[in-house]
Amino acid sequence: MANRAQRPLALISVTDKSGLIDFVKSLVSLNFEILSTGGTAKHLTDMGIKVTDVSSYTESPEVLDGRVKTLHPAVHGGILADRSLSSHLEQLPLINARVIDLVVVNLYDFKKDAKEKGLPLEKAINHIDIGGPTMLRAAAKNYVHCLPVIDPVDYDDVLRELKTESQSLDFRKKMAFKVFQTINQYDALIADFFRDAIGNASQNKDAKEHLPETLTLTLDRRNTLRYGENSHQEAAIYENSSSTGGIPSATILQGKELSYNNYLDLDAAIDVISDLTPTPAMTIIKHTNPCGTAASSQLTAKDIFLKALGADPKSAFGGIVASNIPIDEAAALAMTEIFLECIIAPEFSTEAVNIFSNKKNLRLLKYGSQTKAERIRDQLQFRSICGGYLVQTPDNAEQDFTTWQTVSKVKPNEQILRELAFAMSICKNVKSNAIVLSADHRSIGIGSGQMSRIDSLKIAINKASELGHQLKGAVLASDAFFPFRDCVDEAAKVGITAIVQPGGSLRDQESIDAADEHGLIMVMTGRRHFKH
Amino acid sequence: MANRAQRPLALISVTDKSGLIDFVKSLVSLNFEILSTGGTAKHLTDMGIKVTDVSSYTESPEVLDGRVKTLHPAVHGGILADRSLSSHLEQLPLINARVIDLVVVNLYDFKKDAKEKGLPLEKAINHIDIGGPTMLRAAAKNYVHCLPVIDPVDYDDVLRELKTESQSLDFRKKMAFKVFQTINQYDALIADFFRDAIGNASQNKDAKEHLPETLTLTLDRRNTLRYGENSHQEAAIYENSSSTGGIPSATILQGKELSYNNYLDLDAAIDVISDLTPTPAMTIIKHTNPCGTAASSQLTAKDIFLKALGADPKSAFGGIVASNIPIDEAAALAMTEIFLECIIAPEFSTEAVNIFSNKKNLRLLKYGSQTKAERIRDQLQFRSICGGYLVQTPDNAEQDFTTWQTVSKVKPNEQILRELAFAMSICKNVKSNAIVLSADHRSIGIGSGQMSRIDSLKIAINKASELGHQLKGAVLASDAFFPFRDCVDEAAKVGITAIVQPGGSLRDQESIDAADEHGLIMVMTGRRHFKH
Repeated sequence: MANRAQRPLALISVTDKSGLIDFVKSLVSLNFEILSTGGTAKHLTDMGIKVTDVSSYTESPEVLDGRVKTLHPAVHGGILADRSLSSHLEQLPLINARVIDLVVVNLYDFKKDAKEKGLPLEKAINHIDIGGPTMLRAAAKNYVHCLPVIDPVDYDDVLRELKTESQSLDFRKKMAFKVFQTINQYDALIADFFRDAIGNASQNKDAKEHLPETLTLTLDRRNTLRYGENSHQEAAIYENSSSTGGIPSATILQGKELSYNNYLDLDAAIDVISDLTPTPAMTIIKHTNPCGTAASSQLTAKDIFLKALGADPKSAFGGIVASNIPIDEAAALAMTEIFLECIIAPEFSTEAVNIFSNKKNLRLLKYGSQTKAERIRDQLQFRSICGGYLVQTPDNAEQDFTTWQTVSKVKPNEQILRELAFAMSICKNVKSNAIVLSADHRSIGIGSGQMSRIDSLKIAINKASELGHQLKGAVLASDAFFPFRDCVDEAAKVGITAIVQPGGSLRDQESIDAADEHGLIMVMTGRRHFKH
Repeated sequence: MANRAQRPLALISVTDKSGLIDFVKSLVSLNFEILSTGGTAKHLTDMGIKVTDVSSYTESPEVLDGRVKTLHPAVHGGILADRSLSSHLEQLPLINARVIDLVVVNLYDFKKDAKEKGLPLEKAINHIDIGGPTMLRAAAKNYVHCLPVIDPVDYDDVLRELKTESQSLDFRKKMAFKVFQTINQYDALIADFFRDAIGNASQNKDAKEHLPETLTLTLDRRNTLRYGENSHQEAAIYENSSSTGGIPSATILQGKELSYNNYLDLDAAIDVISDLTPTPAMTIIKHTNPCGTAASSQLTAKDIFLKALGADPKSAFGGIVASNIPIDEAAALAMTEIFLECIIAPEFSTEAVNIFSNKKNLRLLKYGSQTKAERIRDQLQFRSICGGYLVQTPDNAEQDFTTWQTVSKVKPNEQILRELAFAMSICKNVKSNAIVLSADHRSIGIGSGQMSRIDSLKIAINKASELGHQLKGAVLASDAFFPFRDCVDEAAKVGITAIVQPGGSLRDQESIDAADEHGLIMVMTGRRHFKH
């Protein structure tokens, strides 16, 4: 074929010029002719490299500010022709095309030029690349004949391959893979941008859109972690490329790098205090469970902390503290009395930061105001299982006691209802089966992660007794219904006066009868809060 | 502008012809001229609709089997021209273009035509669409002027919008969003296909590739679930579009639809029995924790089940059973004696299936041989937290007691080591802090999900005592090191004779001294197994 006798042809059009000149000079020394456009052509020419401009190759006038210059049969025929078919090679002259052997293109930087600059959609679209992805996808499709290069980091490997006698198809496949992978991410970013521009209002019209037939997640690595849940596991923390806010975006004021388990505990901590907001509250988390939580509109930050700590001082050792109010000097002094892994709060006073600076390893995190809103409204919860992914909307139910139903003969006053709501807000965030005992807006006994509900209650009672808390007059929250009356009997035995639970068991009446026999208050929420 | 005086122009090229004729007839009645290609043009002409073929519009010969017919400035200028710029409109005639107002295109079905047919890469590439995505992306970029339609389900909405006096930009943005979202998924599918073709061997060369800077997940919804962890949460189960095997692919032989919590428990169940394989084993899961587990090379399926059940018969109520051996008639009869939610096993005999058929609600699942392999080698573990995603490689460490170190004066024999390995295999899959007591390859007491290790031990001991298990001579596994000697003292008190733990505490020596004082065996694995 006449075409094959010609010199090999490389089409080059890049936004990222790093390493370009050396690379192209090497191509020229390998006898390549260079086809190029606009800024790239000028850059190469300025450096003394001879290039043919695409518009003189296509013999098509450059119009529409260059929007269509590469969208031409002479370009795409050259890329897409199947060199193993003589028909294809014979037809190329009909469209003024030559075979193109190498396509070196990278995309307009939509993220930097549009997203990060906060451009409105009508301006952002100017940074959507049409010609680039098309040339790259075409070359990737025809990878056997036309090598696509989307990333300057690959220039050395490309040259090595081009110099090799028998070029490897594996390398070409890898380059083609990278094209589809990169464009895939590029379009996900643009889709996210459109989604945001459309706004959440119209998005949420149809609930099913949350859980569509195909769900694409494009995640940017925020940090590689030292290891995962255990040291023989690798791990990293990722963010949605469109998200801002949340724990990964919290400002780290001091301390060692966060570990996988820190992140997991921080997540649980944020859940607990978000559910207690707007009441000032703090919680201490160990192994994703709150071992001490307190809330108060009257107390200082220091006293709220001491109250939460007093719930279970032994378990708090090495824990994570989350606060929904600023940390001042007095609170900081109290916090440095014990060993903590991490403290997260909306604000730290300058004095507090100074005090903490003596504890080099303690991590201090300042979170933005978005933390709760995001958790509650936007984010789907993902969890991988063997061979699949469970995806669900978050448990964003609030404890609104005005909707609860009192089923016992004894009726609660508002103070008791508020205490029950406090206990349930914590219980919702304890691993199931969960029982939380509380008094005066402090947890005094928590039973978590048991296979049997009565065991969770026994653990909660034992903890409260061991720690010297007064059970008489305390309240109880259960994350799910009581399958039998045994929990109510056990609660009455130790002097608990009020119980909140979802209800819904076939044997609800047994539990209600038990409450009435013991003169207990029982309230049903109608809403289960399993968390695993 | 002369061009604007012309009739509106729609470019139509679709693989999915559903609803096409009615739609196009409506367009014609709205005065649209129709531009079309190949199969679509023929289909429309056959139905009596007048169309202009793209090649007569572009005046470019149809070559290369149609690979480049729409990759032409006359097409893309018509789509991309900014109608608000007179320069753009004036330049269109220079490239023989007219403004195109509507682009109706859907993509070659790569999934159906290439992936599901199992085509090799070199044939599959023929099903990669280049022209289609380019026209759609161009129209989506210029959505203000050119409306892209990628999905026949939108035809009615499109017609409604076209008939409206003042067309809404919101609708156009939504259509553009759908384009980028769909093409994003399309390219993810192709990228996955290339990744598979390249093969895992070359993929795994660099461990960091597991956790790349950008991670794209394209998930196909397998089932919409009735609800999530709780009834006020929506949920669905997804699969990687490239994955086969695992729990979502298990064959459901009978029973109600699986719930979110069933899937979570099944995942935990598969972990436990996978870690005990090849020894025949069964486990019963409640709230993601194993409440009873037994393994034996001598016993029948029935007796292994009864042994596991006997570990904690009360907690087993409503549990999930997983087995790594087939379920026969005798085992099925024993299993139907109690209320179980679900049974998963590699095989069920015909007699067993008959017996279970009397329990209509009981879910029976048959899993393929890939279940373990996939879990262990391939799948990254994802977990969303507030604003981000934790991603880690799985905890695939096996309990190889030949690598363990005996630190106590009393040394274990092989029988004891095997018992310790059994206990640790379970402990690894219990929520942290985890303590497992076992005897004769059966768990007899499990302490899970506590904030303090000694509490987990106390729970395990209490459970074992309540259930009448013999603690004397039992062994203990701990998922992490002992921070103090209290656990060892407590274990000795009840007659436990051997302990396995990772070691690694600053106070290891205290625990070792305690073991020696009590004449206990203590073995260290060097490997922690937190699970949250």
